[in-house]
Amino acid sequence: MGQLPTVEDVARVAQVSRQTVSNVLNTPDIVRPETRDRVRAAIDQLGYRPHASARRLRTQKSSTIGVRLDPLQNGISGGVLDRFLHALTEQADARNMRILLYTAPDHEGEIEQIRRLLDGADVDAFVLTATSYDDPRTDWLLERRVPFVTFGRPWGVDDMSDPKHLWVDVDGFSGAREATEHLLRRAGRRVAFLGWPHGSGTGDDRRRGWLAAMGDAGVPEAELAGLEEAAEDRVVEARKAVERLIQTGGGLPDALVAASDTLALGALMVASGIGRPDLPIVGFDNTPIAQALGISSVEQRVDQVAEGALQLLMGETGSSVVTHDFGSGDPKHRLITPKLVVRRSSHLAPAEEAGGTESGNHNRKDKQR
Amino acid sequence: MGQLPTVEDVARVAQVSRQTVSNVLNTPDIVRPETRDRVRAAIDQLGYRPHASARRLRTQKSSTIGVRLDPLQNGISGGVLDRFLHALTEQADARNMRILLYTAPDHEGEIEQIRRLLDGADVDAFVLTATSYDDPRTDWLLERRVPFVTFGRPWGVDDMSDPKHLWVDVDGFSGAREATEHLLRRAGRRVAFLGWPHGSGTGDDRRRGWLAAMGDAGVPEAELAGLEEAAEDRVVEARKAVERLIQTGGGLPDALVAASDTLALGALMVASGIGRPDLPIVGFDNTPIAQALGISSVEQRVDQVAEGALQLLMGETGSSVVTHDFGSGDPKHRLITPKLVVRRSSHLAPAEEAGGTESGNHNRKDKQR
Repeated sequence: MGQLPTVEDVARVAQVSRQTVSNVLNTPDIVRPETRDRVRAAIDQLGYRPHASARRLRTQKSSTIGVRLDPLQNGISGGVLDRFLHALTEQADARNMRILLYTAPDHEGEIEQIRRLLDGADVDAFVLTATSYDDPRTDWLLERRVPFVTFGRPWGVDDMSDPKHLWVDVDGFSGAREATEHLLRRAGRRVAFLGWPHGSGTGDDRRRGWLAAMGDAGVPEAELAGLEEAAEDRVVEARKAVERLIQTGGGLPDALVAASDTLALGALMVASGIGRPDLPIVGFDNTPIAQALGISSVEQRVDQVAEGALQLLMGETGSSVVTHDFGSGDPKHRLITPKLVVRRSSHLAPAEEAGGTESGNHNRKDKQR
Repeated sequence: MGQLPTVEDVARVAQVSRQTVSNVLNTPDIVRPETRDRVRAAIDQLGYRPHASARRLRTQKSSTIGVRLDPLQNGISGGVLDRFLHALTEQADARNMRILLYTAPDHEGEIEQIRRLLDGADVDAFVLTATSYDDPRTDWLLERRVPFVTFGRPWGVDDMSDPKHLWVDVDGFSGAREATEHLLRRAGRRVAFLGWPHGSGTGDDRRRGWLAAMGDAGVPEAELAGLEEAAEDRVVEARKAVERLIQTGGGLPDALVAASDTLALGALMVASGIGRPDLPIVGFDNTPIAQALGISSVEQRVDQVAEGALQLLMGETGSSVVTHDFGSGDPKHRLITPKLVVRRSSHLAPAEEAGGTESGNHNRKDKQR
């Protein structure tokens, strides 16, 4: 616990001396090919990285994980990365590992920061967030054998199961599909989807979940176009998008799945404004605002993401995390199934209808007053 | 920048050799009293701490600041510490300092964590948050001459201007007073206060700001009791408290100041439920939920708090921060004046009345649609 795999671990697994491991890393030509292969297999199996080891041998410190924390975004949904950071810090603490923060304006700037932190031997491994298509950070780290794990899949690569790229992610597809199925059962077949503009790996994944559920329910493709809108992740943009949806899509839908709680709140405001605060809506991320206003939402389970990230980084194979593996028995990747949190009715509904509380339970005391 | 004061700095200011500084710290008896006093004065002036220096001399690293990050609270207002952490990380980064996170269940547990981090030479200085009455952490740190600064005043001590305890805080008294004065001008003299139960230094400070403004406006003390309620910082508790206020205080007040946006949201829900979504309400912390729902709020200016904290820690006296000093010319403490963010009307009001947007500006496009 608290330590990444060491050169001793590699030597033990490969049944060679520490010096042989060092030779394989630094002067591979002098090592017999058979031995070399065995050592390299042990290195891959354990996830051993020489960078981290070098620092730790010098300083005898507990492992330190670098995480980027961006300047504050004034959004509602941005909070999910803050919640992940809380969970990661708590899980790291339990393993005697430390979280060190840095900032960067973009992916390229983050690479510069990582380079600086490695030069200073400040950090042993990195947890990257907000993966994107053509993400330059992961190639850079892989080339230099720096240990890392991403919260987010490597969108756009041919092979997401590459064992060198460790990742944990939340299965937005199944989360959106479950939310849509729930609304199809409860509200009717005209379940709309309010997403982000195309090009976000996470957003596109959630949209596919809605499409799959609508397809399974037999809603013809011709109907789907009128049930879909997109907006940047701000309440005011979401309101406009829902107004467009109503005007061009033939009125208010039966229900709505939103790619975030921010979008869900915009939808709820429009619905309330036309006297329909009871419109069934499901958002994403189960933020405090969804809890406070009684909006149903898909919970990302950031504690499981954090636990999975550290386990992958430490090469732990056993897991108490409830996940389905990515592929069959894939030990290098975790796809966490999110949880649909259903709240019965919005707090914006008239008092005699609103029953939900912050905890998602239905507190009847308010009504007995 | 990026470095706490060094032994060289002390030697230069005291006009002695490094060895003499070392003697004063380790074998003070062999140093002439006059020299000793001069060195100690330089140490105090610069805020030099031997712990930090020892670590840095060994490792040649940039300074690392330890900050406690607690397990996630599912509240709305808790986000202010997350926002402070974002600002602190950004400001530290600009000074080539690093933020290292740890967790603790309570103040005593935090002391244990700090001890461990100091033993491991992992951290040079600490930024403590959530100061409380009889806070055991600060005495522990002062005794061991560990550099620290608190976000929050040392509530309950006799002398808040003790130069050994560096602190930055937001002037909740003036924030609440300004909010109350604003509502007195706009809405009438029956401005209620919804606070937390007594015993919170921060909450009591805000309450005094309301009392001061009401006193200045000539509202007799006899009326004030019926205009005040308290609740734990949860929406459902806030709703109950406002219902109590209405029942026992003689109906809906003209306006309401709340000690947090969470409490403000509860008040807004009650007001909306009885057909008064236009009740003027001011919350505290200017959270995303206040922005999204169009609730006026007092902004804590966490970026200025973060800048002030690092400046005090580094012994920087010059400041670009707009503050009023605590006491006259006090260079060891900063009391930041918060900013009242006025939003014209709540988004829960009917569409033809709601005009505010996320940015606090008044976007008329929605109405022109």
